[in-house]
Amino acid sequence: MDIIEKLNWRYATKQFDPTKKLSDDQVNKLIEATNLSPSSFGLQPFSILLIENEEIRKKLKEAAWNQPQLTDASHVVLFAAHTDLSNKDVEDFLKLISETRNIPLESLSEYDAMMKGFIAGMSESDKINWISKQTYIALGQLLVTCAVEGIDACPMEGFDKGQFDEILGLKDKNLTSVVMATIGYRSENDKYQHLAKVRKPIDQILVRI
Amino acid sequence: MDIIEKLNWRYATKQFDPTKKLSDDQVNKLIEATNLSPSSFGLQPFSILLIENEEIRKKLKEAAWNQPQLTDASHVVLFAAHTDLSNKDVEDFLKLISETRNIPLESLSEYDAMMKGFIAGMSESDKINWISKQTYIALGQLLVTCAVEGIDACPMEGFDKGQFDEILGLKDKNLTSVVMATIGYRSENDKYQHLAKVRKPIDQILVRI
Repeated sequence: MDIIEKLNWRYATKQFDPTKKLSDDQVNKLIEATNLSPSSFGLQPFSILLIENEEIRKKLKEAAWNQPQLTDASHVVLFAAHTDLSNKDVEDFLKLISETRNIPLESLSEYDAMMKGFIAGMSESDKINWISKQTYIALGQLLVTCAVEGIDACPMEGFDKGQFDEILGLKDKNLTSVVMATIGYRSENDKYQHLAKVRKPIDQILVRI
Repeated sequence: MDIIEKLNWRYATKQFDPTKKLSDDQVNKLIEATNLSPSSFGLQPFSILLIENEEIRKKLKEAAWNQPQLTDASHVVLFAAHTDLSNKDVEDFLKLISETRNIPLESLSEYDAMMKGFIAGMSESDKINWISKQTYIALGQLLVTCAVEGIDACPMEGFDKGQFDEILGLKDKNLTSVVMATIGYRSENDKYQHLAKVRKPIDQILVRI
C-alpha cells in the first residue's frame, strides 16, 4: 500500500452510486478511525452524526444546494460542535483518563486547571471556532482512512448550517453543525473521477527555513 | 497494513530522539501527502513551512512554552494562512486548473464568479478562520500519513502565534501562523508512548440518525 497512490486515487466524489452501500463493518471501521483523531487536550468536544434516514437526507439535500451526494451516498457523516462546553466536560474527560490509565484523579489537577483556564479565556464564538478546527482534523483523518480503505468520500462545507441544525434538532442537543463528508462508492458516470488532480506545485506551497 | 493499528500506534509525541533525523525521501513524501489534502474549492490558501534551522527553532521553542519537541524533533511543519487572499488567488487557481486539465479558462467562468463571491462575503477574520480550518484538514492528513509511514508526530496548537509570526518574518510574506506538527522519531524515554490511548467510547461520540 503506497499512501501517495491512495491519496491520488481519492477525489471529492460528486456522483455516488446510490445502489452501493457500505457494510456495517466498513462504517464501524471508519468511525473508529475518526474517533482516534487527536484533538486539543484530547477533549473531543464534538459529536459525529452518522445519517442514513432517507427522509432526513432529502431535507438536508435541500439545505445543501441540492447536491446529490446527500441522498446518493451510502452515508452522511456530519461533525457537530458542542455548544455547551464547560468545566463539566473537562471533569468528565479527566475521569475518562483516570479510568483508562488507572491513575488517581488527583494526579491530574494541573491538567484540570490548565484546561479550565483555557476554556474560560474564550468567548462563545472563540469556542465554536476552536472546536470546529478540531473537527477538521477528524475530517482529514476520516478522508485518508476512506482512501486507504478504497472508499469514496466528498468533504462538504457548502450547506446551510442553521437549516441543518433545525432539520436535525441540534439546538436542543446543544450541538451545531460544522462540516461533513458523504461516503460510499463513486458512480461510473461521475466524470470528475477522470479529471487530473489540481494541486499547487510543491515549490509554491512549501517554504524551507 | 491495518489503518486502525497504525492510528493506535501514533500518539502525540512529547519527547523526540534528537539524534534521529528523517531522510529527504521521507520528508518529501510527507509534504507531498500533505499537499494532496483537499481544501475548500481546491484553493489551498496557505503555505507549509518546513523548519530545520536550529537557531530559529530555539526561538520558536521559547514562544511555545519551551516544549522540547520544537528543538528535538527532526523537523517542524508549520501551517500558515495567506492573509492577502484576493481575486488574484482565484485567478491563479483557475489558470492552474486550466493548464492541469487542458481546458479553456472561459469554461471556468461560473466557478470563478462563485469563488469570488464567496471570498467577497467574508470579513478579514472570517477569511483567516476559514483558511485555518483548511489547514487542519491538511494537518489531519499529515498525521495519518506519518502514522502509516511509522513516523512520529505531535500536533501543536499551544504557541504564541504573534511571536511565531515575528520570529519567522511572516507578516512581510502576507502569512500568519495557524497550527503545526513536529515530526521525527520518539525517544525511548518518552513515557507517553506507554500510556493507554484515551478516547470517548463510540456510543458517546456517535449519533445515529
